[in-house]
Amino acid sequence: GNKGLVVTSGNGDFAISLGGRIHADSTTHLNDELQKRSNGDPVEAVSGTELRRARLALKGRFNRDFTYTIEGDWGGNSVSMKDVLMTYHANPKLEITVGNQKHAVSMEVQESSNDIMFNERSLLTALTLPHFDRAMGVNVKTMGQNWSFQSGVYGDAISASGDGADEGGGFGARGTFAPINEAGKLLHIGANVGLRKANDNNNLSNSKTPRLRYETTNMSDFYLSDTGSIAGFEEIQLTGLELAAMRGRFSAQAEWGQANIKRDGGSDLRFDAHYLQFGWTLTGETRNYKGSDGEFKMLKPRNNFDLSQHHWGAWELALRLDEVDLKDEEIEGGSQQRISLNLNWYLNANLRILFGYSRAYELDAGPLIQPSGSEADNVDVISLRTQIAL
Amino acid sequence: GNKGLVVTSGNGDFAISLGGRIHADSTTHLNDELQKRSNGDPVEAVSGTELRRARLALKGRFNRDFTYTIEGDWGGNSVSMKDVLMTYHANPKLEITVGNQKHAVSMEVQESSNDIMFNERSLLTALTLPHFDRAMGVNVKTMGQNWSFQSGVYGDAISASGDGADEGGGFGARGTFAPINEAGKLLHIGANVGLRKANDNNNLSNSKTPRLRYETTNMSDFYLSDTGSIAGFEEIQLTGLELAAMRGRFSAQAEWGQANIKRDGGSDLRFDAHYLQFGWTLTGETRNYKGSDGEFKMLKPRNNFDLSQHHWGAWELALRLDEVDLKDEEIEGGSQQRISLNLNWYLNANLRILFGYSRAYELDAGPLIQPSGSEADNVDVISLRTQIAL
Amino acid sequence: GNKGLVVTSGNGDFAISLGGRIHADSTTHLNDELQKRSNGDPVEAVSGTELRRARLALKGRFNRDFTYTIEGDWGGNSVSMKDVLMTYHANPKLEITVGNQKHAVSMEVQESSNDIMFNERSLLTALTLPHFDRAMGVNVKTMGQNWSFQSGVYGDAISASGDGADEGGGFGARGTFAPINEAGKLLHIGANVGLRKANDNNNLSNSKTPRLRYETTNMSDFYLSDTGSIAGFEEIQLTGLELAAMRGRFSAQAEWGQANIKRDGGSDLRFDAHYLQFGWTLTGETRNYKGSDGEFKMLKPRNNFDLSQHHWGAWELALRLDEVDLKDEEIEGGSQQRISLNLNWYLNANLRILFGYSRAYELDAGPLIQPSGSEADNVDVISLRTQIAL
Repeated sequence: GNKGLVVTSGNGDFAISLGGRIHADSTTHLNDELQKRSNGDPVEAVSGTELRRARLALKGRFNRDFTYTIEGDWGGNSVSMKDVLMTYHANPKLEITVGNQKHAVSMEVQESSNDIMFNERSLLTALTLPHFDRAMGVNVKTMGQNWSFQSGVYGDAISASGDGADEGGGFGARGTFAPINEAGKLLHIGANVGLRKANDNNNLSNSKTPRLRYETTNMSDFYLSDTGSIAGFEEIQLTGLELAAMRGRFSAQAEWGQANIKRDGGSDLRFDAHYLQFGWTLTGETRNYKGSDGEFKMLKPRNNFDLSQHHWGAWELALRLDEVDLKDEEIEGGSQQRISLNLNWYLNANLRILFGYSRAYELDAGPLIQPSGSEADNVDVISLRTQIAL
Repeated sequence: GNKGLVVTSGNGDFAISLGGRIHADSTTHLNDELQKRSNGDPVEAVSGTELRRARLALKGRFNRDFTYTIEGDWGGNSVSMKDVLMTYHANPKLEITVGNQKHAVSMEVQESSNDIMFNERSLLTALTLPHFDRAMGVNVKTMGQNWSFQSGVYGDAISASGDGADEGGGFGARGTFAPINEAGKLLHIGANVGLRKANDNNNLSNSKTPRLRYETTNMSDFYLSDTGSIAGFEEIQLTGLELAAMRGRFSAQAEWGQANIKRDGGSDLRFDAHYLQFGWTLTGETRNYKGSDGEFKMLKPRNNFDLSQHHWGAWELALRLDEVDLKDEEIEGGSQQRISLNLNWYLNANLRILFGYSRAYELDAGPLIQPSGSEADNVDVISLRTQIAL
Repeated sequence: GNKGLVVTSGNGDFAISLGGRIHADSTTHLNDELQKRSNGDPVEAVSGTELRRARLALKGRFNRDFTYTIEGDWGGNSVSMKDVLMTYHANPKLEITVGNQKHAVSMEVQESSNDIMFNERSLLTALTLPHFDRAMGVNVKTMGQNWSFQSGVYGDAISASGDGADEGGGFGARGTFAPINEAGKLLHIGANVGLRKANDNNNLSNSKTPRLRYETTNMSDFYLSDTGSIAGFEEIQLTGLELAAMRGRFSAQAEWGQANIKRDGGSDLRFDAHYLQFGWTLTGETRNYKGSDGEFKMLKPRNNFDLSQHHWGAWELALRLDEVDLKDEEIEGGSQQRISLNLNWYLNANLRILFGYSRAYELDAGPLIQPSGSEADNVDVISLRTQIAL
């Protein structure tokens, strides 16, 4: 089938599968000849080709009640471990997960990069990542057909910090409820909170600087919004609200988030961001929503692409409006609005091609300005992704 | 079954399997606010969470007589290759192994990290590792039901040294004999010797400094015993003796080792270390000993953990006393004694949870002292490991 | 079977396999105590053991017309992605491949390291690699039983360049034709061209310096021919011609290549190289040639090595003469000729052992000279490789 290499024992108590994903990207920027506000150095986005993700995942089940995942990413010629975890399924309503896993925050962060309708996640991730990305921890989840609630405590990321201080830690909790959840009809509401403390030296683990920023593409090294390193960073508190709906081939999803940062020797900081997005399946399919996870999963085409049968797979149009404001107190991280448009071609359950366009506008007080000295404006990104998921 | 993903040809001449291991750790230190004896800089152990090991291994058999293993470790967001080797099974009593493999020394080094009763190996590894860890080489092994003898010559580790000199090399030999080896009854004796030469620049390969030391946990960056870099390091000779016994649910194991280091322009150095450990299976199982390897393998629970059947798996208590002395001539690497206590829960053949506690005491002349200027003392380590092995 | 772990669906529309390769090397140099021509610093080749390649590859087919490969190399304790690509098989004569792949140049570059008759490729690779190695791109191939033509455009390698400029790009095209291609009889002709542009800062991506050179072995860090970094490097154009023939147990293969380098603020450079090699299967087997790829594949022994049946596998003798000239304008990269002799033992379809010897001679104007001040001469390399391929 389309699930990678799968072997299952007769009674189903043991199973193992090997799968993976490839995201091959080609990106171009327009209006990106800018300079640093601070010192006038020229800055240009790196455009070109990149292996955005190249992941292999070994997943399995043993002794009926235990499942595990070992997933590594080899994109960009370096390795990073993603999900490395084990789940005990105590009963159909209760799961306990130990290992390296995402914090239980933000619908968009929970949704897989295989499944989202855009090439990159929204500006809201300036608040959620990297502080609430994967970390070693324990997560308890309880769920039903139309709802889920999970909460976890986490240490730091999977390697030692190396700066000689005990590591920091984090907490996350997310609840979702879908009062309407039937074939082609959905109303989803959700809320989440997160907390992460820096280590004793006010640093994050894994050489991550305590800062909030958004990179236009994974390879661009180009940040239109960036707080820079925040001195005395003690902890970040995140609050998020989610709303989603679907009716046949149309879907909508929105999130709003606010981050509060406590500092050692400085007043607190408050930043917020949100996005609103719409999906329209041109070929008529309905998107998949999983109530027990509170997430959208990848669209499956009704007819796979097959030239000999004149089948063209599924086509999807997506629009997103997002905004982030990283200005508070003396921090001038900039604010921006953005519009993104995606045309996505799902050839079959394993292969899709994403054509993405986005424009950042209403840029204010960010780290990059035009050579003329005025604010940066109308920075465009054009992206093409070929995605294989197994 | 519980062996990972396995595929076998009809006649058994070809087989292949994909397995792995996850060791997820959480560690805490007590009494670790020390300072360097040399310059008074404060030193503290790094406590927190870590992915200690995340390994995938592809193993197989081809043309009946050949087996191979390709094993990588992705713990800590970096990659290192472990066993990468091919074995020719000439006949039931003779094996030749080519590739990256452990030196044939020390029972404890030969035993898998999946199988040992403690979170970390003993203080004896200050002498054996890293000098006698995996390296590229050829090993010849001959064995029977109750005995084994193997010996190998090795080059350096799998990557080039990079310091422009021809690589060093090593040698190892280990013999074991079990005069008593029946169900629930064991007497094991063994002996081993090792030799490793530095390269022409008196360095070890793979950027490893020629030094002996012991890290309290893999992430702590905290060494209560440490010779520091040994100038003029030419070669290290290792001698080891092994003794083990088992009677029903009780087992005991001990090793003693001595390292002799030859130096260019300095007198020889001699260090020694030993450990003595006891295991007691609370739930009555007997440990597994493999006579043709001269090693203990992982305990298998009689009844797997299953709440619905009121089964709780196997529980094991383990105690270890170990000691290392790294003081000789002008080298002040320190000496220490330690006591370690482990409570291990084997849920099934794939999953176990280790609760470990250790206290280092009788510290003398080591690199770290108390802020008051007196010797460090009673440094405690508390460790929790979740282990999946496939 | 011998193809690694393979699972196929009933109708063959879906399949997946996991395979790999291990190349474990031991190398020695003679007459390698040289010094830099530029400053007299002593230079010596690093001899020793190395894991030259340790690759795992996940390959598969989905929805009948799509195949993919995800291949990583963990040799030398670092990771690099090799083939990471997806191919759409539009019809038996047309394939489109997207992803990280070799440029369509040079027969020898196209042939797998598992299949070539020598431990390392020829001096011609000083011109072809790294400029025409794998990169992210799109390749279109059309082929028949006895011919192939492919051409592709490529971005840069799979990770971002990091030097703040848009990436460069490349182009390759290769055509092959075998007017004679029957059992034990072959005549092959081929031609190829390549083009690669540096990025806006005259650099190559992935931290690769724009230079041409040849390393005696992968671990030696020893370059008898080396242009050094070429300032103002704008683009390299490659032209290559191929000729191969086979008659029963005898085969011959030759390539000639010329590289033209355009510089910003400097005259153009022209370098060339060629090789001529012969194979003789002592045990009588014929080598495998695939007309639709225009490549030789690995020899398969008629009888696998099996002591109990007095079978010894296949034995092959190979001779290669190659030459490179990296001197032009003010660039003194040196020239050399070399003779290589290999005795290869194919135990079965998965295992072979290569005994290689080569001597570089007629060295002129290269970067390394003898301590006496005269040109380096008669530098010998002795190599032993154990190769497992699945």
